[in-house]
Amino acid sequence: MRELDPKSRDLVERMLAGDRRALARLMTLIESRPPEIYAIMAEVSSHMRRVPRLGITGPPGAGKSTLIDRVIREWRGRGQTVGAVAVDPSSPFSGGAVLGDRVRMQEHALDEGVFIRSLGSRGAHGGLSRATMEMGCLLDAFGMDHVIIETVGVGQTELDIMGIADTTVVVLVPEGGDTIQTLKAGLMEIGDVFVINKADREGAPRLAAEVRSMLNLQPGNCGWSVPVLLTSAREGQGIVELVAAIEDHHSFCKANPAAEKFRSQYLKRWLAELILAELSLRVRDSESSRGEEIFKAVGEGELDPYSAAAKVLADPAFLRALLGLEPDRET
Amino acid sequence: MRELDPKSRDLVERMLAGDRRALARLMTLIESRPPEIYAIMAEVSSHMRRVPRLGITGPPGAGKSTLIDRVIREWRGRGQTVGAVAVDPSSPFSGGAVLGDRVRMQEHALDEGVFIRSLGSRGAHGGLSRATMEMGCLLDAFGMDHVIIETVGVGQTELDIMGIADTTVVVLVPEGGDTIQTLKAGLMEIGDVFVINKADREGAPRLAAEVRSMLNLQPGNCGWSVPVLLTSAREGQGIVELVAAIEDHHSFCKANPAAEKFRSQYLKRWLAELILAELSLRVRDSESSRGEEIFKAVGEGELDPYSAAAKVLADPAFLRALLGLEPDRET
Repeated sequence: MRELDPKSRDLVERMLAGDRRALARLMTLIESRPPEIYAIMAEVSSHMRRVPRLGITGPPGAGKSTLIDRVIREWRGRGQTVGAVAVDPSSPFSGGAVLGDRVRMQEHALDEGVFIRSLGSRGAHGGLSRATMEMGCLLDAFGMDHVIIETVGVGQTELDIMGIADTTVVVLVPEGGDTIQTLKAGLMEIGDVFVINKADREGAPRLAAEVRSMLNLQPGNCGWSVPVLLTSAREGQGIVELVAAIEDHHSFCKANPAAEKFRSQYLKRWLAELILAELSLRVRDSESSRGEEIFKAVGEGELDPYSAAAKVLADPAFLRALLGLEPDRET
Repeated sequence: MRELDPKSRDLVERMLAGDRRALARLMTLIESRPPEIYAIMAEVSSHMRRVPRLGITGPPGAGKSTLIDRVIREWRGRGQTVGAVAVDPSSPFSGGAVLGDRVRMQEHALDEGVFIRSLGSRGAHGGLSRATMEMGCLLDAFGMDHVIIETVGVGQTELDIMGIADTTVVVLVPEGGDTIQTLKAGLMEIGDVFVINKADREGAPRLAAEVRSMLNLQPGNCGWSVPVLLTSAREGQGIVELVAAIEDHHSFCKANPAAEKFRSQYLKRWLAELILAELSLRVRDSESSRGEEIFKAVGEGELDPYSAAAKVLADPAFLRALLGLEPDRET
């Protein structure tokens, strides 16, 4: 196993000692996915307390940032610390505007008990759930009592598949108009708690009733009864109840043996993902070296990708070369 | 290269001869990802005419199905045939309701010149873009003049990354309320044509103006000037203009040398994806055989996933075993 180089070790040690700048620099380092990422994350993992991860998701404009701001204040009011990762799928050119949206959350930047990090989805190319997970691990090892992960829902199955959060809150708004369609687009099954935000708007109780009746059609989640809450994040209403529901869910899971099994499967999948991420880099890299010829033939239309794939996959020696796994490499 | 078994060959031949039932059965077969998928798809590829692929995306409830219905009618009116793949991210339990939405499109089921297929995203686990692409190839080889791919936008970067469509139409609605946020969540850069549907609603001209001004901030797409059109799909208004814009974009791309380069890169990435898909299956499979011990240790929390990954990746012999690439396997 690769040892931590002295510079990375120093960074990790300073982070573990509570240095916020070291934490920020480590996050940037991890995002760049250097070869020593395994050694760094192994070290980080050994210092994690495994605090609960809270996922907040929902369509754009549901008020997720404001809600998170309120939840953070609630926990801070009790003297607990909070780390948050906001997955910001905005493109580089619109980045500024969306960041403006986070101004409220930036207020917490002056608070030593809060640390917020935004992750862009552009350029992540499928590695977003991995990067999000890693930021969460860093925040946990840093010593935060809670980790919050904000994502934009709808179709973003990659993230929920990985089961990043222990508790997932789905935030909806009345007069989203097509909220029910949004729910059907994959949000329904992932919610452990539902929040109808902007509850002062017309249609909020009706939406809550609709969500409840949809929940009744769903197969049970190991006996957890999914609450549907009304909040008005801007006014700070319903936040105490929301935090209580989140904590109830966490206690429920801790007492449930099925949760342990889920966790075990999740860790295994995590290992498979890490191995595949490396193989993926090697295959892409091989386009310009070991596999140059066949990739060129495909690029020029001389060979279709399926014939080429069949050829590569039927030839273990070629595949070994492609992946840098030739036996003579070991000596 | 694996030869086509007689049963698959028969199915492909009947499909190429215009047998709709053979096409449907082949789609089901491909979705199940059998080992002979490479041989089948290589054969299918050799019969493709490479007709234009039209992508239609946008938030839930934007009226994409109705719009597609109208575009299909327009092309059918000119005697052209159309195949469509609808990526339906609904979950099993809500499937019925969303399918009800497609009733209009089902009308075309009686028309021999139209073939529509729905693909669910649940269970696809990252393989959705691959499956979608393959359905498109089948429809092309079947002889359709146009291939349409409908997806739900927002965060579904996996699909656009693969560059499945030659022309992408982004469909928006006024009073989507948070349309601008939706756009920022990744739809802005992928649109070759923008459509403001339900244009009779208040706010349609304003939304069109906003989209135009956002487009002005964007770096140019090889000189293509992105049109922003107003339609009312339910009333059939603006459809002729939309179809003209789609065809303009196609002509523009054909005349543009950059498009050829993009296509070449796309084919190479496609090959890399196919190789990785197979490796992914092998890694997951190894959890219960060759890699059992290390996966077990991770699952039981004895080893963190990063330490385990580092161990596996630093050991070529182990990795070869994991991937079924031992030299003695060849003999």
